[in-house]
Amino acid sequence: MTVTATDSLEGVSLLEELDPAYRLEIARQCRWRRYGAGEQIIDRQSETRDVFFIVRGSARVVIYSASGREVTLDDIPEGGFFGELAALDGAPRSASVMATADTLVASASPELFLRLVRENTSVAMTLLWRLAAMVRSSTERIVDLSTLGANNRVQAEILRRALEAPADDQGRPRISPIPVHSEVASRVSTTRETVARVLSDLARKGIVLRERNTLVVLDLGRLELMVSEMSP
Amino acid sequence: MTVTATDSLEGVSLLEELDPAYRLEIARQCRWRRYGAGEQIIDRQSETRDVFFIVRGSARVVIYSASGREVTLDDIPEGGFFGELAALDGAPRSASVMATADTLVASASPELFLRLVRENTSVAMTLLWRLAAMVRSSTERIVDLSTLGANNRVQAEILRRALEAPADDQGRPRISPIPVHSEVASRVSTTRETVARVLSDLARKGIVLRERNTLVVLDLGRLELMVSEMSP
Repeated sequence: MTVTATDSLEGVSLLEELDPAYRLEIARQCRWRRYGAGEQIIDRQSETRDVFFIVRGSARVVIYSASGREVTLDDIPEGGFFGELAALDGAPRSASVMATADTLVASASPELFLRLVRENTSVAMTLLWRLAAMVRSSTERIVDLSTLGANNRVQAEILRRALEAPADDQGRPRISPIPVHSEVASRVSTTRETVARVLSDLARKGIVLRERNTLVVLDLGRLELMVSEMSP
Repeated sequence: MTVTATDSLEGVSLLEELDPAYRLEIARQCRWRRYGAGEQIIDRQSETRDVFFIVRGSARVVIYSASGREVTLDDIPEGGFFGELAALDGAPRSASVMATADTLVASASPELFLRLVRENTSVAMTLLWRLAAMVRSSTERIVDLSTLGANNRVQAEILRRALEAPADDQGRPRISPIPVHSEVASRVSTTRETVARVLSDLARKGIVLRERNTLVVLDLGRLELMVSEMSP
């Protein structure tokens, strides 16, 4: 595709403290490409070491097991980036990445990326924070997988989404759109059936309510209690 | 304790590219302390944000669940460091850390640590590699926990240790000392009984042999095959 003058790396968090002229220079050195929802951006088997900036759209980091099970590792929003592990250590890709919406990415070669990190403290620090956050959320997931049953992991995931969701004027979180069962299942390593069962159970207890395309959490306190009683 | 002239940060990987005089200056700004094997260095509940350099000895990073289950996250060898997450993001400790041998640590305040990272590209890059490695090994563990049964996770852990162990002149890895069952269990999130059962099974099949304080892997190929058939 042809990159128009309006395409820029302005919204990319990793680069936000850089001088605009310098950032434009980097944009010119990137390769730009569009992907449709569901299209693969990084194949786990691929030999590339590029880093990808999400200028528009979003992406999902997944691993597929031999048995075909999909393990979702992360969702990267607009302005985020991915592919930094292979660029940093030169080892193979740890996972595959696919677009989850119409997505425009700019990709930097590992050489360009490492130069950016070495020469700009703000880039290095933002990258350190990002990796630290990844370690923390991975640790949380390892502990959940090691100590909680599948039902509790689903409850914990609904709670996490509730805490990130906007609340209505009565303080009730509104998760919208309603989480797709297979997506939650892949996030907490269980089956779609388990997710469906736990959500029905929460609805029956009056803790959540399905309202058109929104899951309203009616009783956040009780959901928090259910999860905290199980957590380490 | 009194720090003698021989105590230095020379063997600490994070600081190895720094000028020796500068490193000595940092050593003087650290707090030095000895811990006995089993003694706690970081309490997960603590409010400190210091970073610890292991000058001598070793340490283990663990989380204890409400039910008392111990989840081992990492083992840090001599020359390694820990506590960097809280220093980087200012959030609470993600885990507890205890000495696994007589251990001498030097601890840096978060201010000193962040200054080191900001002002020295070699420190920033080594820290990035370390965090990238932590993300990779966490990802591997999440995938193992999500897709493998407990028996296969134990086999995979024995294989990992075999690949890191020195081999005898017939190319057979010698894991010494023999892994403690409870330690392996805590590493792969299962019970001691499962570890004991899998090891007996591997011995019965002639894949491993217990020899004094060493576990000899007689048939690495077959162990690799058992694990790879299960892996994603």
